[in-house]
Amino acid sequence: MPYTIPAFLKEHNLDGFLFVGDSIYNADIYYLTRFLAGDRFAVLAQDKIAILVSSMEVGRARKESTAQEVLSTSDYHVLENMKAGMRPEQAYAVALAGMLRDHGVRRLGIAQSFPAGLFRILARDFDVEILDSPVSRQREIKTEAEIAAIESAQRACERAMRRAVQLIAASEPKGGLLMRDGLPLTSEQVRGAIEISLLEDGCEAAETIVAGGRQAADPHAAGRGPLAADWPIVIDIFPRAKASRYYADMTRTVLRGEASPEVVEMYRAVLMAQERGLAAVSAGISGREVHERVSEAFSEMGYKEREGCGFTHSTGHGVGLQVHENPSLSEVGEELQAGHVVTVEPGLYYPEIGGVRLEDLVVVGPAGCRDLTCFERELVLKR
Amino acid sequence: MPYTIPAFLKEHNLDGFLFVGDSIYNADIYYLTRFLAGDRFAVLAQDKIAILVSSMEVGRARKESTAQEVLSTSDYHVLENMKAGMRPEQAYAVALAGMLRDHGVRRLGIAQSFPAGLFRILARDFDVEILDSPVSRQREIKTEAEIAAIESAQRACERAMRRAVQLIAASEPKGGLLMRDGLPLTSEQVRGAIEISLLEDGCEAAETIVAGGRQAADPHAAGRGPLAADWPIVIDIFPRAKASRYYADMTRTVLRGEASPEVVEMYRAVLMAQERGLAAVSAGISGREVHERVSEAFSEMGYKEREGCGFTHSTGHGVGLQVHENPSLSEVGEELQAGHVVTVEPGLYYPEIGGVRLEDLVVVGPAGCRDLTCFERELVLKR
Repeated sequence: MPYTIPAFLKEHNLDGFLFVGDSIYNADIYYLTRFLAGDRFAVLAQDKIAILVSSMEVGRARKESTAQEVLSTSDYHVLENMKAGMRPEQAYAVALAGMLRDHGVRRLGIAQSFPAGLFRILARDFDVEILDSPVSRQREIKTEAEIAAIESAQRACERAMRRAVQLIAASEPKGGLLMRDGLPLTSEQVRGAIEISLLEDGCEAAETIVAGGRQAADPHAAGRGPLAADWPIVIDIFPRAKASRYYADMTRTVLRGEASPEVVEMYRAVLMAQERGLAAVSAGISGREVHERVSEAFSEMGYKEREGCGFTHSTGHGVGLQVHENPSLSEVGEELQAGHVVTVEPGLYYPEIGGVRLEDLVVVGPAGCRDLTCFERELVLKR
Repeated sequence: MPYTIPAFLKEHNLDGFLFVGDSIYNADIYYLTRFLAGDRFAVLAQDKIAILVSSMEVGRARKESTAQEVLSTSDYHVLENMKAGMRPEQAYAVALAGMLRDHGVRRLGIAQSFPAGLFRILARDFDVEILDSPVSRQREIKTEAEIAAIESAQRACERAMRRAVQLIAASEPKGGLLMRDGLPLTSEQVRGAIEISLLEDGCEAAETIVAGGRQAADPHAAGRGPLAADWPIVIDIFPRAKASRYYADMTRTVLRGEASPEVVEMYRAVLMAQERGLAAVSAGISGREVHERVSEAFSEMGYKEREGCGFTHSTGHGVGLQVHENPSLSEVGEELQAGHVVTVEPGLYYPEIGGVRLEDLVVVGPAGCRDLTCFERELVLKR
């Protein structure tokens, strides 16, 4: 049963829910309006969606946004009030109040992240409730069209991964480093190849991780400098498709040269833990349970988390208009539902051995999940 | 006289100023910590800077951030409280309150944009004042190092502009379109060349504008499809250097083919208006006055704004860690100060003729300004 705004307003006895922000950052605002703007604007969600934009944006908003009504801040004299000496935040709040009154709003809902300054001013004239955003909740369950957009970004992700893997496979281990055309192959070069591929596919290249050696033992390190032979290299790519704004996310770990028994063993453990997690994901199970199964798999294989080493992060997270969104596959993960899109990404990290992580992106179904990732999991690369 | 946090706290009788957000989006947080993180964290600014990050980020934060103190949310039992059933926002607020108490804070300042949900909870136990961010104010005046970072991004911007101009210059007007290798040259192709150049220079390629024909008459249109011969093409590039996080911003307008007398006239008017604006920029003058000089220049030349045509936007804006920041060169622009970095970007827009905009990036000095832009302003391109 989809979570609709009218039902939410009724449940909480509200006349409307107000968002203020820019839609590049605020995914709820983009989701409600499909209007991409770097400058903040306001969205009033009732049975219909009304937006309040600057006069310069009215034309584009009427053309591009899905909002039923487009209002201009000049209708509410923002600039005149500022010229008359009113502070910007006050002049903007006056415009918001005008819009709210014109839409019959007395009891107003806002999200936790709503700006405190505007909240304080609006709370003088309206009955304002701060609630978890109903739109974030709605966004968790993906429509067919959203899943198609994520899959398309995932294909771009895989093409970029292919280039990275080919580049590393074509390098030659020599003196402990990976060499290419007589020079050390670096994280930056591999990341560059990934970024070019993503650009060609119409994706934004975010903070791609290409981390080898000891760097890979820190799951957040981006990676820099020459890549070591015989050590696992973690490649984590999470592009956003520019046209749709949806993300994909995947990680593979590869190695060029000779893998030590410890690394081979560690890779196998991550692979098995990932299989355990993928097998567990299904509507009705909680993200917490999935995470527990993965953690148990590591424990059974002798990899216990201690002193910041081992499996140090959560199992996964939702992916959509944000690269990290609900639900969470972690110690506090709630129940999974059909239509959730989540990562399953166990990893192991030891400064003396390096890092291994494998990440697939899946759609939760009524009985199991569908893996959106089409890319082999093989540690040791051959030319 | 730089605007320091201790002086601000004293002036407002506060024990500390608190920020909560991620430093990819919140430039104040990045400025205070130089710690780049996509997940939210808290920054308490007193005489020293303390940050509160998740336990997974503590190691990286100690290494990368400039904060004098790095605290972990696990010190304040966030996860335990959530596991015990506390709502995430409440558990996080409890951690913030603990951190504030441990730092002797009773009277607390927060910015207008601080999340309303956390504000409401903290306001129960602390004396909270919502104020304009002192850090945004501090960020307006750039240090030498910041200006160097902006200049470096500007050089990358110019190299990308050079590729775009060369691509258009190398095309051939035929049947009203610009042709290249027998196919129409498109906005997308030119934008692709710009983005590749920016990537090679370590920059993020934002929403670059390459708009020709009637599209260029909308100053916010990104541009798409085949580029028309004989019409002005607006190219607006505003990359962010990934390493420093600083932006640059520039616009040129070019044309391949035959320029009509109206277009030539319009280009000359924009050029003269820009010169007028550049000549006016100096410490002590207000952004409003600069904007008035530019508007007057257009009026004198017979280009008056009416019905959404003509000079429809403001003259410029500050550039730094954000592509649009204070000060503003507009009807409400305040006094310029030495060390401000601003754009001067007049433009004219008519659906039947197209759009022309010229934008330079300058550092405000005590007597005049220094133009950071090194790129010719020439309308008609020859092979």
